[in-house]
Amino acid sequence: MAAICFQSPSKPIYNFHSKSKPSSPIIAKVSVFRCRASVQSQSLVVAEPEPVFTSVKTFAPATVANLGPGFDFLGCAVDGIGDHVTLRVDPAVRNGEILISEITGTTTKLSTDPHRNCAGIAAMATMKMLGIRSVGLSLALHKGLPLGSGLGSSAASAAAAAVAVNELFGRRLGNDELVLAGLESEAKVSGYHADNIAPAIMGGFVLIRSYEALDLKPLRFPPEKDLFFVLVSPDFEAPTKKMRAALAAEIPMVHHVWNSSQAAALVAAVLEGDVANLGKALSSDKVVEPKRAPLIPGMEAVKKAALEAGAFGCTISGAGPTAVAVIDTAEKGEEIGEKMVEAFLKAGNLKSIASVKKLDKIGARLIKSM
Amino acid sequence: MAAICFQSPSKPIYNFHSKSKPSSPIIAKVSVFRCRASVQSQSLVVAEPEPVFTSVKTFAPATVANLGPGFDFLGCAVDGIGDHVTLRVDPAVRNGEILISEITGTTTKLSTDPHRNCAGIAAMATMKMLGIRSVGLSLALHKGLPLGSGLGSSAASAAAAAVAVNELFGRRLGNDELVLAGLESEAKVSGYHADNIAPAIMGGFVLIRSYEALDLKPLRFPPEKDLFFVLVSPDFEAPTKKMRAALAAEIPMVHHVWNSSQAAALVAAVLEGDVANLGKALSSDKVVEPKRAPLIPGMEAVKKAALEAGAFGCTISGAGPTAVAVIDTAEKGEEIGEKMVEAFLKAGNLKSIASVKKLDKIGARLIKSM
Repeated sequence: MAAICFQSPSKPIYNFHSKSKPSSPIIAKVSVFRCRASVQSQSLVVAEPEPVFTSVKTFAPATVANLGPGFDFLGCAVDGIGDHVTLRVDPAVRNGEILISEITGTTTKLSTDPHRNCAGIAAMATMKMLGIRSVGLSLALHKGLPLGSGLGSSAASAAAAAVAVNELFGRRLGNDELVLAGLESEAKVSGYHADNIAPAIMGGFVLIRSYEALDLKPLRFPPEKDLFFVLVSPDFEAPTKKMRAALAAEIPMVHHVWNSSQAAALVAAVLEGDVANLGKALSSDKVVEPKRAPLIPGMEAVKKAALEAGAFGCTISGAGPTAVAVIDTAEKGEEIGEKMVEAFLKAGNLKSIASVKKLDKIGARLIKSM
Repeated sequence: MAAICFQSPSKPIYNFHSKSKPSSPIIAKVSVFRCRASVQSQSLVVAEPEPVFTSVKTFAPATVANLGPGFDFLGCAVDGIGDHVTLRVDPAVRNGEILISEITGTTTKLSTDPHRNCAGIAAMATMKMLGIRSVGLSLALHKGLPLGSGLGSSAASAAAAAVAVNELFGRRLGNDELVLAGLESEAKVSGYHADNIAPAIMGGFVLIRSYEALDLKPLRFPPEKDLFFVLVSPDFEAPTKKMRAALAAEIPMVHHVWNSSQAAALVAAVLEGDVANLGKALSSDKVVEPKRAPLIPGMEAVKKAALEAGAFGCTISGAGPTAVAVIDTAEKGEEIGEKMVEAFLKAGNLKSIASVKKLDKIGARLIKSM
């Protein structure tokens, strides 16, 4: 019997008592306890799942977290950039374990120790949730995202890995479980925050309603509307730890009221597909952005340039250094991006790269299976 | 020429230069400047409007402001309780002026000096906006709401009066103007906050996006869904000033993030008609309610009783002392109300009165004209 109990947001606890017959698929009784305020329990009788493919390839998108007044509880996925994971059943790997066989792409500096790699940690957490003890896996990670860019690089790796394991074994887990698996990885890398990993897995905009019993609220942007993100990443390091340390422990009530109202307005704009007001709200943060922007050379000028060029709003993506602006057409996005790149160079003496991306409405996905 | 310029949230400035020919309707050129960040101006050529009725009767509903994490920027209107205003053209009253002829209903303690009465102040502000200089009016106020109950009593009087003047002269002003007129009254009574006056005039839920150039966002609760408020008003005085003084000037960042996420979740629940999550978010305030509830004897027990009786959520209405719970049927609302009344008596030694009301989706309205 395997019991999984998430007792607190910072301490998910996994107890796997069932160590018998590790080498072949067995029938196991799995009880899943979600420790909520009002205790809910489910008893499931499931077998250790067998792989339904010999290998899968998955993709998970970049994500923009915080979104101005949505600090630490709101994020969204952006299309067309992200990380890939190729996962295969590997008889050479010990049963129940995972091997990181290869890391390619934008960085090869990452550890191949699965306990110290975002993809590895998330893959192992997913295997544990599924109760995989009879199959060994090898994982190849292809990074499409640079590290520390503020675009959810670690979350994309974790999401692609968690979804790869889930797909390989027949898609037994739902989004909430996959986000919890990804959160194990995020907690070790950048803190217990789901505003990157949730949209990386689920796509679109996701509001994190609560961590005490993870409660995710997808916010549906109307499918008939267009939303483009102008992402401008400067050649500058903005470590998450330093950016978090820049924040005040206490904030004035008047700023709290303002930012709360803007977060509320942002959610209304997302649900109604009102890109102009979405941008206005995203651009309105008086709590976090004013503390972090001065730490990224040129950021204030970049924001000004974006707004002057017609962007509906602009803020820091995640903990930075990427600047994100929003607009309703790709053409205008290109123009805005050019102005932002110029401003980073002129005001911050930083080279930067601009790209215009649509909202990703799908999230982490299977792209190939064998 | 009359110029109306709202320069700052705390200082709306009215300049009426045109004092010629005050005794008869004239053609006047009115320029309306809304001083926004991006300056917008409109030039309108309008005559001083003539009354289209000799008398009108209006109603404006009670309102629930704050709504837990929506402190100072979110409010909604509740059906079936509120204030009435009867306004008539009165040749005995000096042109351009207003007389409060009568105050009846739940309280007769209010001043009949129109400069010191919510209805009078809002009516005069509306007359000024319309440029009324050639007609005198008398106003009778019937209070359906008790003073200082936390149900937007002053806003209901102001809303009914502003709408009465507007209707009498042919409905020339829009909601934004009427809210600004009502705000003149609210500013003198309880502070420059639109979270009562905006829903009192517009109905439904209203998000105050900004006061710097008033920016109101109506949040449409789906018409096919039902939402009931259980309002329990104890026999206790909770002066707004005292309740505001109880709040901290600074709040912990962690509470800010939590409350912002709950405000965001509340807006999503309103727009989606998700009463259970609306209640959950409304009930989740960690910033304001914990400071104010201890000042209202029994409030914590009343909230507990409401939740135990099946309410989806419960908090303080406005600055109190009324407790508000939400639920999806009137029958369950009655049961919850009984438990809340019991709790006020048992834990707070306070008598109280419960009522179950639907969301008002209309706001202040004309109910009779002659």
